[in-house]
Formats: sequence, C-alpha cells, structure tokens
Amino acid sequence: MEGKEEDVKLGANKFTERQPIGTAAQSQDDGKDYKEPPPAPLFEPGELTSWSFYRAGIAEFIATFLFLYITVLTVMGVNKEPTKCPTVGIQGIAWAFGGMIFALVYCTAGISGGHINPAVTFGLFLARKLSLTRAVFYMVMQCLGAICGAGVVKGFYGKTRYEALGGGANAVNHGYTKGDGLGAEIIGTFVLVYTVFSATDAKRSARDSHVPILAPLPIGFAVFLVHLATIPITGTGINPARSLGAAIIFNKERAWDHHWIFWVGPFIGAALAALYHQVVIRAIPFKSK
Amino acid sequence: MEGKEEDVKLGANKFTERQPIGTAAQSQDDGKDYKEPPPAPLFEPGELTSWSFYRAGIAEFIATFLFLYITVLTVMGVNKEPTKCPTVGIQGIAWAFGGMIFALVYCTAGISGGHINPAVTFGLFLARKLSLTRAVFYMVMQCLGAICGAGVVKGFYGKTRYEALGGGANAVNHGYTKGDGLGAEIIGTFVLVYTVFSATDAKRSARDSHVPILAPLPIGFAVFLVHLATIPITGTGINPARSLGAAIIFNKERAWDHHWIFWVGPFIGAALAALYHQVVIRAIPFKSK
Amino acid sequence: MEGKEEDVKLGANKFTERQPIGTAAQSQDDGKDYKEPPPAPLFEPGELTSWSFYRAGIAEFIATFLFLYITVLTVMGVNKEPTKCPTVGIQGIAWAFGGMIFALVYCTAGISGGHINPAVTFGLFLARKLSLTRAVFYMVMQCLGAICGAGVVKGFYGKTRYEALGGGANAVNHGYTKGDGLGAEIIGTFVLVYTVFSATDAKRSARDSHVPILAPLPIGFAVFLVHLATIPITGTGINPARSLGAAIIFNKERAWDHHWIFWVGPFIGAALAALYHQVVIRAIPFKSK
Amino acid sequence: MEGKEEDVKLGANKFTERQPIGTAAQSQDDGKDYKEPPPAPLFEPGELTSWSFYRAGIAEFIATFLFLYITVLTVMGVNKEPTKCPTVGIQGIAWAFGGMIFALVYCTAGISGGHINPAVTFGLFLARKLSLTRAVFYMVMQCLGAICGAGVVKGFYGKTRYEALGGGANAVNHGYTKGDGLGAEIIGTFVLVYTVFSATDAKRSARDSHVPILAPLPIGFAVFLVHLATIPITGTGINPARSLGAAIIFNKERAWDHHWIFWVGPFIGAALAALYHQVVIRAIPFKSK
Repeated sequence: MEGKEEDVKLGANKFTERQPIGTAAQSQDDGKDYKEPPPAPLFEPGELTSWSFYRAGIAEFIATFLFLYITVLTVMGVNKEPTKCPTVGIQGIAWAFGGMIFALVYCTAGISGGHINPAVTFGLFLARKLSLTRAVFYMVMQCLGAICGAGVVKGFYGKTRYEALGGGANAVNHGYTKGDGLGAEIIGTFVLVYTVFSATDAKRSARDSHVPILAPLPIGFAVFLVHLATIPITGTGINPARSLGAAIIFNKERAWDHHWIFWVGPFIGAALAALYHQVVIRAIPFKSK
Repeated sequence: MEGKEEDVKLGANKFTERQPIGTAAQSQDDGKDYKEPPPAPLFEPGELTSWSFYRAGIAEFIATFLFLYITVLTVMGVNKEPTKCPTVGIQGIAWAFGGMIFALVYCTAGISGGHINPAVTFGLFLARKLSLTRAVFYMVMQCLGAICGAGVVKGFYGKTRYEALGGGANAVNHGYTKGDGLGAEIIGTFVLVYTVFSATDAKRSARDSHVPILAPLPIGFAVFLVHLATIPITGTGINPARSLGAAIIFNKERAWDHHWIFWVGPFIGAALAALYHQVVIRAIPFKSK
Repeated sequence: MEGKEEDVKLGANKFTERQPIGTAAQSQDDGKDYKEPPPAPLFEPGELTSWSFYRAGIAEFIATFLFLYITVLTVMGVNKEPTKCPTVGIQGIAWAFGGMIFALVYCTAGISGGHINPAVTFGLFLARKLSLTRAVFYMVMQCLGAICGAGVVKGFYGKTRYEALGGGANAVNHGYTKGDGLGAEIIGTFVLVYTVFSATDAKRSARDSHVPILAPLPIGFAVFLVHLATIPITGTGINPARSLGAAIIFNKERAWDHHWIFWVGPFIGAALAALYHQVVIRAIPFKSK
Repeated sequence: MEGKEEDVKLGANKFTERQPIGTAAQSQDDGKDYKEPPPAPLFEPGELTSWSFYRAGIAEFIATFLFLYITVLTVMGVNKEPTKCPTVGIQGIAWAFGGMIFALVYCTAGISGGHINPAVTFGLFLARKLSLTRAVFYMVMQCLGAICGAGVVKGFYGKTRYEALGGGANAVNHGYTKGDGLGAEIIGTFVLVYTVFSATDAKRSARDSHVPILAPLPIGFAVFLVHLATIPITGTGINPARSLGAAIIFNKERAWDHHWIFWVGPFIGAALAALYHQVVIRAIPFKSK
C-alpha cells in the first residue's frame, strides 16, 4: 500500500488530468491548455513491488473470467436449440459480448484501465500508455481468466455436449476464406481499439470528468457492432484471450487450425488503430518538444 | 420529518461525498483526498422513528411490485405463444428484467438506495452500508412487493392459464443439474452485486456527481446480461424476492423443489462480490486506522 | 420574444434550479439547500401573448407527429408479413415506441418540456407543474400531431391495406377482459409517469446539471418496457394521443369500442403516479409553509 | 499545426462555449447568458492551409468507410440466410446502422464534427455552421469512404454472391410507390437532422459540458428508429453517401433507377429540419441585432 502513482500511466485509467480542452486540436501545441502525459517506460521496477500492480492483474483476471463465462454460456444456450427462435438469437449473442464489455469496463476502468483484451493492451502499449511489464502481465492474466471462464461453462454442459455445441470457439466459417477471416478480425479490432483511443484521449478526458463513467458505453457498443457484422464469418474474435480461452477448453482441431488468425488479426488491427489515432488524429510524432 | 442524515449510510444512496479522487487506489490512505464513510451500525434506533425509513420501505415495495408485474407479464406473453417469433422473444424477456432494474434504480436510488433485490441488500449489509434493521425491513418489503406484482399478473391470466404457462417461476431446467443451477445463480449474482459495488464506490462517487444518474445503466445491463446467459438454465433468479414472489403465486411443487437454490445462490454470490470488492479492490481490512 | 420566464413552470423543462441537494429527503425542510418551486397557476394570462407558448405547442405537435409516423410505420412493417422472423418483430415495435420517446424528449425537453403524451401532461398538471391553459393547449396539439402522423402512414399504405393491417390501433386483444386492459393501461402509465416525476424531480435536478440530457433515457426505457409487457394485451396505449390518432385514421368499430380504456386508464395511472410521487415520496402536502 | 480556431465553426464540433443557459428560450435576447456564434463564411481561405481541415476530411473518410463496412456486412449476413431466425435479423440491421452512428459520432465529433452523412453536412451548412468549402470537401470524403467500405464487403463475398444478395443497395421495394419512398426519406432524414440540431444547439451545449459525450446517443438512436420504420419501404437511406457507396459497388440497374430518391429525399429532409430548428425553435431570423 505504497500510494504510488504509477496507475496514472494506464490506458483507460488515465482520467484524472483536468486541464481545459482546446477546440482546435492544434492549440494543444500552445502548451497552455493541454499537456500530453509522458510515455510510459518499457520497464518500471517500482510497479513490481506495488500492490496496485497485482490488484490490477487480479481485476483483469476476474473481468475476463466473467466475460467468457457469460458470453460462452449465451452462445451455448443459442447453439443447443435446433431453431433459433426460442433463444436469445444471434443478436442476443452480440449483446452479450458488447454488453459485458460495457459493464466490465465500467467496473474495472478505475482499477486496471479495464482492458479485458490483449489487443487493447497491445494497442495502448504501442501508444506507450503502459509499461511492457504491465502489458505482458495483463495479457497473461486475461488469458488465464478466459480459460477459467470457458472451463466453468464446460463444467455446466459436460464434455460431450460442450464439444457438440462448438464451445464458443472461433473459426473461419464455411464459405469464407482465411483471408476474409483475417481481414474481418483486423478491421473489427480497428473499430474497437480506435473507439478505446477516442474514449480515453487525454484531450477529451481533460475536460470531461465523467469520461470514466461514459466511455464504457461506446466501447461496449463497438464490440456489439463488430459482432453483428462478423459472427457469420468467424464468430468474431477481436480478443485473443477470448479466442484462446475458448480454443483451449474446446480443444478440437477445428479451433486450432485457424487460431493464429485470432492473434495476428487483432494485433494488426490494434496497431493500425494506434497508428491512426496517434499519427493522424493527434499528430504526436510531429510535435516539437 | 426530522431531517435526519441516516440515509447517507445506504448503498446506492451514498452519492453525496464530494472529495477529489486519487488515481492510485492506495493514495486513499493518505487521508487527504478521500475518506471511507464509517460502517453502518447493526441497529440504529433513530431510524425507526424517521419517516424516511418507512418511505424507503414503501419505495422498495412499489419498485419490486412494478418489477415483477412488468417482467412476469412479459414472460407470460412469450410463453403463451407456441412459437416465439410473434413475441418479443427470450431476448425481450432479458430486456424486461434488465431494463426494469435500470429504470427502477434510476427512480428509487435517491429514496431507498434502489436495491429492489434482497441479494443486493445482503451484499451492501455485509459491507456495512446499511443497518441490520434496515436490511431486514427492505427484504420484507421487497418480498411483499414481489408477491403482489406476480399476483396482479395471475389476476390478468386467471389461475388455469397462469399455471399452464409456468407463472414466471424459477426452476432448474431439464438437462442441467442442481449444481449447475446453483453455480449459475452464484456467478450471476456476483456479476450484479459487483457492478453495484463498482457503481456506488465512494471513491468513484466522490468525483462524479452524476453517478446517481448514470450508475443505474450498467447495473441494469448486468441484470440483462445474466439473463441472456442463464435463462436456459434456471430462468434466472439472482433476486430471491423475484423468485419467491413468482413461486408463491405459482405455488406448484416444481417451483418449491428448487426454491432454496434461488436464496442460497444469490446470497453466496452477493457475499463473494462484497468480499472481492471490499478486500481485493478496496483493501479495506488492511488499512491502518 | 418577451423573455418571459413562464417556461420555468413546465415539467421536464424545469431543469435550471441549481441548489445543492441533501441526501436525506427530510433535510429539504430546512429550507437551506433546496426550494420547491411554487405551483403553477391554473390560468396564466401572460402565456397567451408569449411566442414561447405557441412554439411549445408547435414542438409538441411535431414531436407527436414524428412519434406516430415512426411507430405506426414500424407496426405496419411487422404486421404485413405473415411470419414475424423477416421483420423487426414485436421487440422492434417496443424499441420504436420507447426509442422515439427517448429521442423526442431529448429534442423537445428544452422547448416544451417534452411531454408528447396527454397522460404525462395531465400528471404534471395535477402536480401543478404547468397551467391549465397550457395543459389543454398541449393535449390538443398532441392529438392533432398524432392524427397527422398516422395519416401519413395511411397515405403510404393506401386505405385498403392500412385497414387490413390494423392501422396500429389499440384494442383489448382476444383472451383478455376489458378489466385486464384497463388495469394494464393504469399500471403501465403509472410506470411511465412515475419515471417522468423521478427524472424531473426538482431535488434531483438541483444537483445534476446534466439531467436534461440524461432524463430522456430512463423515460424512453419505461415506454419500451411497458410495451414489452402489454403489447399482447392491448397493443399498449399509455398515451391517449397515440391511441386517438391511430383510432381516427383507422376508424373501424374495433378501435372505437374499447377507445375509452385508452383515455381512462392512462389518466388514472398518471394521477396515481402524481399522488405517489407528491404525497409519499416528496410529502409535499405535509410540509409546513 | 497552426493552432487555428476555425474548427470552432463546425456543427457537432461546436461544444466549447460555456455560457449559462436561460430556461426561457426568449431570454437569449437579453444577450447576457447566451450568444449565438456568428455564421460560418461561405469560403474561408485559411482552412485550406490548415492541417486540421485535411485531418477532418480523413476522419470523415475513415468513419464513413467503417460505417459502410460494418453495416453492409451485417446486411449481407442477414440476406444470405433463407430464413432470418439464425441471423441477427432486420432489427439487428437497424442496430448496426444506428449503433455505428453512435460510436462514430462519439469518436469523430471532436475531430470533424462527426457528420458521416452528406445530408447532415448539408443541413449544418444551411444553418451556416460550416463553410461551403468544408461542406463540399466533407461530402466528397464521405462518398469516397462509403465506396471503399462497400468495396471491402464485396471483396469478402465475391462479385456473384455479393450481387445475388443485393449488396445492401437502397431501392423502393415492391408494394410502395416512388412517392412513398421519397416521403419516407424526407421524414426519416428530418428525424435525424432535427436530432442533430437539438443535440448541438449552442444553448444546450452552453451549459452541458458533457454534450460532446452524450449527444451521439440520441443521434444514433434516431438512425436506429428510422431504420426500424422504413427498412421495409426503401431499405432506409437517409444518408446519400451510404446509398451512393452501395449503389456504385452493387452497380445494377435496380439500384440506379431509384438512386435520385436517396439524394433528393435526404437533402429536402435536412433542409426542412434546418428550417424548423432555426426559424421555429430558435427564431434566429427574427432576432434584432
């Protein structure tokens, strides 16, 4: 309980600067009304001795656990019926994914930044919003949480029934090429990570003290919308922890064959979103000083 | 009309402290920017002579009445059709439960804290956010409201048709064990009560004066999401008053056989959420002074 | 353009008092942190010479016109298909009603208070939030707007097809008694008008300057939720202007037989909500001075 | 990076005036608590040498690209199934359109104003919220983005399958006249653009610093609601860039025959909304000085 301030450097956790915001993005160069936080160091030794570092990891674990539990359970509930009318339907699956991200980002943004997704962590790391140590720690905790969440659902359904119903695992569906699947993951993750960057933009949060409350809604909607569009193609990953957790618990060849797509696609998409936001929108590399 | 301040100790009602919030949770120990409210006493005699105490009970009664009325009516409207396409569907049922919690927490948070659920009251009691007297009073009023709400729906449908359509009562469905049902209730209530704790966190409300307005949305979404996932398993309780009201009005063996699950599960889930939030996230037991 | 302040006395328009709010409702009696606005007079001559009075009426007309246009068009789109799967479904109809109230209250709250419903106007009139003159003027404009909105939809579909598809008119459906329908309208309108009172409560708005922005969401949700529950019973009125507009344009015996239910029910429900909020929640009659 | 202030004159970007707001609209004439920003000039040479001008265009391009990509992909996913139950359904399509507008306006409002729609740009231009230069530049970028977005979806599906499934192109459906389609586009765009005007009203934003965060939600809902109502009639355009992009990539006679409706309708609707808001609601032409 050292009262360290290192949390300040996290992504969605950075909501506490209170400078006034300029209307023209360029006016930030004046240095009067807005200040870009310094980039996070690659390795920050102080973090490793801070309870808030481990607590953030626990929060990411629990959040990803609940995310997989609710979403995979919803998928199984839809898959187990031969027709979809007496279920919440594919749209209900999309709501489960998007809604959980909304609720979980709302709950954990103040603790860990509320990433719940290695692609989000990766994008924020590229923008130097958190240290490499923390990024790796988050990703590990997210993957462990995802495995446990999917595991509980398998416990409810039993091995045979779980595997028969697909286990919520991602794969490129019949009628689409691997290239289609990869493209869908890239653009889908771009939509999500671009929304995260827009919502946690220091310029925006500078003026809007309620951003930590409101930002989760568009982020959750971005996840919902990508699912509406790409469930028919890949079941929608855009979250390598979600794909990994479901694949490990499902553990059939079908899930592993395409598994690389659900890591490469989201990481490319997150990198493009970081590039677009930092270079085009914020023009950070071109700023003097 | 004594102008007492006892309401301050309620859960979702505690929105009025206005200290600045630190970004690192530990900085609260500095005692400068944040102060944890003192725990509520187990028994507070002054409450019993205060009109606001009884008014809060009436508000819980009316809110739970409206909650059961709208949700059970929606369930009956779906159940009465042989196919679900010409109804609002299972997803519509999930919206009814989650949406009513959103609207009712919004309306009653300022009066009673807006619990509308004995499991929420129990969780907040464990965190010492309200007195034992008040917790018991709320639970009684919630159960009475729930019975009346389901009763009105039975009045609309008549005894025979109401019983044929299941009366919105909770039970573990065919294909799942009682253990599955209990687990689903525990984790589902954890999701709900953890969201309640996150939304009413004194650190969060310290800075966000609009929390009383915005907190209901993620809380309502949490209820919606748990319904998406667990309606196929138990019909989703996560609210003992809702389960009790429907069971008493339905009053068939099927509802009573599993009824303990819908008290034990939610109370365990609420206790785990209180434990997680108070011990892991807020580390309250470990604070000196 | 007289710069009169009479708009201050409207319902959802009363968002500008900025006193701090006490946590205990009773503390309002202290007279320090909160002041109840004086009741609106029954007749306020100055209104009739003010442009803002007529502009508010125009805004109510346009809003109710758009409300009926979008909702009845959605109902027709669902009804014209023999099965509901290739339509937005009954749930989509509920979203159309609730979502339009959300958007229209958001747009017109600052102009007329955003009632769009004679039952809301009646409830706010009973609470003395607007004058009798204004209440009657609003109701007339709402009914005219509703007739025009439904009329445009009839123009799109043609007389024969419009009548064959039911015209979106309200009636008690087969399998329910008139008493069921009346009860459903009473409780449904109670849910809506109680939410309106909660959202526009002067104590709440005193502290939350963003209430005019956020209040429309729970109000819209209340309408959505009542539709989820009672579309199977009456098609859901809870808005006499909506029922009248559809009935006049449909103009079949079936719509007129039950039409009284859609005026008597909403007005009773609105009166009960006004009573509950003013007497139980706010205890206004019992306040000295 | 000149730090120019020209962005201040954009539509949804104009959120930074912080005068207190009067309750009666007329009180604005007092000139004390509210000031209407001056109209944008038709041609503003300084814009063309400013990076923020081109960045705004890039943001409009990317936003419209993502809008078409997600929405047309959702439409294709629904159309490729013979029955709609195993898809997100028509309601899911409406959510995709409305939800994307919510998320994209949220993300780009601070950069370009977040128009993503030539009809919105046209309406705001008529109200003199942006220069003619900027309006034309935005419209060109929006149309280019839309073409690219639909093109990527065609790449996923292949030419044959894309054309067989309709390509998400707008046309007046069988059973409706061209006049119905034109009317539906006019009123639908009126709903959208009126909501945009209400959300970005300088009087409203004067007091609500969180408007840039919250305004996207009712704007997105307006798009969702119009889709619920008019998908059966025209597939719903209310956005000429969306209609043009889908038509060019689909490139069948069916899409081109009615294409004028999806430009004329939205532009008339936007003009009526600008007229209604500026003349009736704000009474700007009648103000002295």
